[in-house]
Amino acid sequence: MATRCSTYQLECRAGEARRGTLSLPHGDVQTPAFMPVGTGGSVKGLTPEEVEEAGADMLLANTYHLWVRPGHELIRDLGGLHKVMKWHRPILTDSGGFQVFSFGDKARVKEEGVYFRSNIDGQWRMLTPELAVEIQEALGVDVAMALDECIEHDADRRRTKESTERTTRWLKRCLEARQQPESTALFGIVQGGFHPDLREAHAQELCALDLDGYAVGGLSVGESQEEMFGMLDVSLKHLPAHKARYLMGVGYPDDIVGAAARGIDMFDCVMPTRLARFGVLFTPNGRLALKHARFRDDPRPIDSDCACYTCRSFSRAYLRHLHMTKEVLAPRLLTIHNLTFYQQLMKRLRNAITEGSVAVQELLQETRGWRDQYSEETEER
Amino acid sequence: MATRCSTYQLECRAGEARRGTLSLPHGDVQTPAFMPVGTGGSVKGLTPEEVEEAGADMLLANTYHLWVRPGHELIRDLGGLHKVMKWHRPILTDSGGFQVFSFGDKARVKEEGVYFRSNIDGQWRMLTPELAVEIQEALGVDVAMALDECIEHDADRRRTKESTERTTRWLKRCLEARQQPESTALFGIVQGGFHPDLREAHAQELCALDLDGYAVGGLSVGESQEEMFGMLDVSLKHLPAHKARYLMGVGYPDDIVGAAARGIDMFDCVMPTRLARFGVLFTPNGRLALKHARFRDDPRPIDSDCACYTCRSFSRAYLRHLHMTKEVLAPRLLTIHNLTFYQQLMKRLRNAITEGSVAVQELLQETRGWRDQYSEETEER
Repeated sequence: MATRCSTYQLECRAGEARRGTLSLPHGDVQTPAFMPVGTGGSVKGLTPEEVEEAGADMLLANTYHLWVRPGHELIRDLGGLHKVMKWHRPILTDSGGFQVFSFGDKARVKEEGVYFRSNIDGQWRMLTPELAVEIQEALGVDVAMALDECIEHDADRRRTKESTERTTRWLKRCLEARQQPESTALFGIVQGGFHPDLREAHAQELCALDLDGYAVGGLSVGESQEEMFGMLDVSLKHLPAHKARYLMGVGYPDDIVGAAARGIDMFDCVMPTRLARFGVLFTPNGRLALKHARFRDDPRPIDSDCACYTCRSFSRAYLRHLHMTKEVLAPRLLTIHNLTFYQQLMKRLRNAITEGSVAVQELLQETRGWRDQYSEETEER
Repeated sequence: MATRCSTYQLECRAGEARRGTLSLPHGDVQTPAFMPVGTGGSVKGLTPEEVEEAGADMLLANTYHLWVRPGHELIRDLGGLHKVMKWHRPILTDSGGFQVFSFGDKARVKEEGVYFRSNIDGQWRMLTPELAVEIQEALGVDVAMALDECIEHDADRRRTKESTERTTRWLKRCLEARQQPESTALFGIVQGGFHPDLREAHAQELCALDLDGYAVGGLSVGESQEEMFGMLDVSLKHLPAHKARYLMGVGYPDDIVGAAARGIDMFDCVMPTRLARFGVLFTPNGRLALKHARFRDDPRPIDSDCACYTCRSFSRAYLRHLHMTKEVLAPRLLTIHNLTFYQQLMKRLRNAITEGSVAVQELLQETRGWRDQYSEETEER
């Protein structure tokens, strides 16, 4: 077996919830961790220092985007993604598969890989398990994801079974293709759609392989939170305690706390960054939509308990003005707030796990309230 | 006479060029000074700290934009523009007239003021000299500009004379309308189109009025640099030495050095910020257009002698990637570089004035070369 460059140290438990440290070539990550999304090599509008100041230990970048532009060989020749984007902490990349499958009719699955037509240059390309590993290793990331097949939410049993089996074959090819296991870890992805027995069986199959960590894929595709949590439980049941577990593309604060309560260690989601661009801010009193006229002359910060640069510096009235007049400073300042809010949540979540199950359940209750519209009443309580 | 809140201290001369300090309610400004443009209450994409780090002592904001959105009363009620945008150094606003006149057919000049249809809300509004002062005082800026009439480059003598006389009448109404001369200075604007005798006469008329400073308007509207400098000479001829002189909306580095050599103390221009958004960077080896394929894999900073955050942190290859993929971080990072470049130019210009006329002429020669396309040959010399 090759040298392992990723270790997960479990520090404490509260029920199924785990607090720990994921050690990677570019440093340690406190888990449960939330990774901001830096799709094409930047977290939209933010410098790496700002992402770090928001409290992030680790970033996610998208293999598909960097493969197509500017190209993984170019990034490798420039010294790797860390050096190019000046982010010195760990980076995880997805496999590129999720984007490719999102092309729908323009993507065709074959045993060899996925044949698809790029939305950027219109070219037909083939993404294979081997190429997904090659690209991610060229980027020089800490954690690479294996190529998996992403299927529809309503896929039937037969289709799901076939797809899950293909995902396992692809995963084995990814393991074979690795050239630098000492510097880039490889995580496999538990699939199985919404068929509990298939998921459980797939997770067991993956346990037999020499993986650095496990992701749960195919969730957060339109199902209810309850349904997602059910699938999560069967996905996690057999996974080893000494490896990190990552729930891909999730989610709202209560999704995160609920999934962490079930044993997930890592998360990523575009929610805090995307909603910021729409002028929607996370606060302990609910989601605040800046466009509302009530904020027009509001001299208060977004959240008076928040210590982020935006809340320390600017009023809701000014931020609303920037947002309504489409000033590019707006998405930047609002993204800083939302990312800080998410990282503060992760910190509270880690502390709640240290405290015990009751504290985790209390945090889950509290975060459910954050789905609501911003309410002054709550604030004044 | 009311208390004067603006004083200009001449420190040294090199020919007609002047080095000095403009003291305003929010602090001192080293002149010749370049004011970055923060149109709607922000320098596009930058925090006030970044604008300050680029070396700017003073900002320009646009009265028209702030009047229409979010409204000057709102800004006044929130504590003034400085507090709202968190910029603690001096601010100058234009009168709003330039924007209004740019509506062409949708603007009609009457003796009372300019009647126009707003491009933002489609409403007909009237901007009068009194209102221009009221808005700027409500914003709480350090320097307000008097409302002037902006005419076409090719206006004939009769039309120019009528317009210039109206500008003088409006200026007197602005002086009358002031409510807070102890906190907001008022500058008048020398007009007279491209008729040297009318310009000279107008400047003389303005000298008779109690103004805190003088601007030269109606230039940089499509004429040659030589023609502009000619008009500048007659505009400045009679202005008092102990008041600041501001050339509105100018310009490229060699325009600035040439105008400073003729006695101008203050400048503003959208050039460095706008060109940054187009991916065009100022360097000592010419203008560098990032889109060119030659920069695709260029690991060097934009300018290895530049100490700005962007040049300290990122390669041309990465910046080109961000620019080509329309990442919002690109205009931000490129604006930081261009503004820093401009402020470094102003610093060199002030030092050249201390050194003497030869140094100023040498700087003028050098800056003329900056109009060219970026050249490796020059760099390697």
